[in-house]
Amino acid sequence: MPTTPAPAPFTADDYRARMARAAESAADAGLAGVLVAPGPDLVYLTGYQPTAITERLTVLVLAAGQEPVLVVPTLEAPDAEHAPGSAALTLRDWTDGKDPYTVTAPLLDVDGRFGVSDNAWAMHLLGLQKELPGTSYVSLTEALPMLRAVKDEHELARLAAAGAAADEAYGEIVKVRFEGRKETEVAADLAGLLLKYGHSQVDFTVVGSGPNGANPHHEAGDRTIERGDMVVLDFGGLKHGYGSDTTRTVHVGEPSAEEQRVHDVVREAQQAGFDAVRPGAACQDVDRASRALIADAGYGEYFIHRTGHGIGVTTHEPPYMIEGEERPLVPGMCFSIEPGIYLPGRFGVRIEDIVTVTDDGARRFNNTDRAMAIVE
Amino acid sequence: MPTTPAPAPFTADDYRARMARAAESAADAGLAGVLVAPGPDLVYLTGYQPTAITERLTVLVLAAGQEPVLVVPTLEAPDAEHAPGSAALTLRDWTDGKDPYTVTAPLLDVDGRFGVSDNAWAMHLLGLQKELPGTSYVSLTEALPMLRAVKDEHELARLAAAGAAADEAYGEIVKVRFEGRKETEVAADLAGLLLKYGHSQVDFTVVGSGPNGANPHHEAGDRTIERGDMVVLDFGGLKHGYGSDTTRTVHVGEPSAEEQRVHDVVREAQQAGFDAVRPGAACQDVDRASRALIADAGYGEYFIHRTGHGIGVTTHEPPYMIEGEERPLVPGMCFSIEPGIYLPGRFGVRIEDIVTVTDDGARRFNNTDRAMAIVE
Repeated sequence: MPTTPAPAPFTADDYRARMARAAESAADAGLAGVLVAPGPDLVYLTGYQPTAITERLTVLVLAAGQEPVLVVPTLEAPDAEHAPGSAALTLRDWTDGKDPYTVTAPLLDVDGRFGVSDNAWAMHLLGLQKELPGTSYVSLTEALPMLRAVKDEHELARLAAAGAAADEAYGEIVKVRFEGRKETEVAADLAGLLLKYGHSQVDFTVVGSGPNGANPHHEAGDRTIERGDMVVLDFGGLKHGYGSDTTRTVHVGEPSAEEQRVHDVVREAQQAGFDAVRPGAACQDVDRASRALIADAGYGEYFIHRTGHGIGVTTHEPPYMIEGEERPLVPGMCFSIEPGIYLPGRFGVRIEDIVTVTDDGARRFNNTDRAMAIVE
Repeated sequence: MPTTPAPAPFTADDYRARMARAAESAADAGLAGVLVAPGPDLVYLTGYQPTAITERLTVLVLAAGQEPVLVVPTLEAPDAEHAPGSAALTLRDWTDGKDPYTVTAPLLDVDGRFGVSDNAWAMHLLGLQKELPGTSYVSLTEALPMLRAVKDEHELARLAAAGAAADEAYGEIVKVRFEGRKETEVAADLAGLLLKYGHSQVDFTVVGSGPNGANPHHEAGDRTIERGDMVVLDFGGLKHGYGSDTTRTVHVGEPSAEEQRVHDVVREAQQAGFDAVRPGAACQDVDRASRALIADAGYGEYFIHRTGHGIGVTTHEPPYMIEGEERPLVPGMCFSIEPGIYLPGRFGVRIEDIVTVTDDGARRFNNTDRAMAIVE
């Protein structure tokens, strides 16, 4: 099977630089610091991923001019010590029965305002709010939405490799049998192909056939795919720690004129979104470009989600390509462009590529044919 | 392969009763209501589990005398409608680009105090705090710690079945080869056995050999198991939606006198914890009973975690058997009793059963031999 060598791991210096940049960005935003919970923010900043996220508090405290401190349960300290970024921080452990908030409080300004990971547990935020009533908090997506959004060259290489692997999977899935098989069977094929092409984790394998394709969040079900079905294939996961996410809509046998027309509109809308990407454009401009094309074609009410989302150490993160998101695109940002048309009870079409902003426009990480493939 | 028939699914009436009880418990605790996030609380109360937990707000609002309302992203509404508990609640969906907190706010008392799922995202809590500055919040574990703790007969049957399946897995794992194989290989065997005996999800398969056993949170690594090793085996997952979690410590070949002694102490401590279980005893009494036995044997400083945790729709939840937890045991509560001794750099021993409180004592859901098995 075709494989590429694994990229060089990120080093403690890489993580030190990311943590320093986060602390500086926080200070620039008027924050006393950043509180990072297990999950993608912590993976990005330290490389540490607890084996399970539990009710026991783990939090990374970052503040400008202060050594990063990772508060961890004593039980998990040995694992945390082995994280690639741990050489760039101090561990402070707390034992079952102690109050983890009293352990964390001395690390915080008692009247500071802190950015906190979106997915930090509410119970931990409440614990800190109670322990330090003078502090205040704002979610990292609100305070520092672009913290992980601009990728460096090593991250771009990983995202490109993940996209290429997903493309390889698509190249094979259009050759499998669709007619007469259940959606879940094709989804299992897709998952196997993502793993075959180097993914370590499959996040989703949507197979939306016929009317199921009209529910944009349908995954894959017991429905048997029939000749004449449109089939939305939306799949992705993580390879070397970075995400893939691509969608193509295929047809079992020859499409009707209407099906072809809807597919053409979505394909043009996807291209219009891509053409709108350049440094300095607003995120919402990408959404508007795709949406205008679909609306002009008369399908505006059937495009019922935003046009795109960022991707990095997760398959779903800022920046969002949505009306109202006025922040500018910056070279190195990576996100999906995925317009769709969903005709309730009938069929859906979605076409999605991951793209990155370049110095003068955009580059795609998915490059399979966007024309409607005919499958059997 | 031995299998038992799947239990009858919980019905909308079951979920209606659970939601009503939660709302009443909240009112009794002086709360205006309960805000339930995706995760185990939502599974328990509605049977609904989104395919992915994302930044899009999903929240169940419960308040005494008020119809339960589930706020969901429009994209996910079709999935939510199919949840088994959805007939007992009202769905209110919100579309990308809308502010989900303004959609949720009218459901809340503007100056009420609410219990909120521990694992609700901090960003959502902050969104509600900002939208309704007069509201206040407390984590459900603090406000209603025993919301899911007392199991009904149908839940007990599921937990018993999960425990029996884990016991079947143990019965087979002691027959596999240990010496000369990596921990990860034995862990894979364990995972396969849990699935073979009906688990739908494997949560953990700890194989801690020799010095790795002295790290209670070690999972399984590249270490090759050698003759003379103690090996901690701690494994569990979900079967029919309810958890298993059991630990036995085995030995490759004949143990030394010291190894046998440590194992005997842990086994006696586990029994002492079990003997302390009865309605009305405090949770901490179970911890104290196990801990006293280990301390009296001179190993007190090497028992570095609490004695147990609850289990239900998760493998890790209240009640906790820990010093300071003075709440009383109630018939139907289910939790682990899992004392251990960890000698750094040398070996560890842990023995764990899931037990339930009965009207006059306790009953084990794990019933394999607690004596040290000799494996090859």
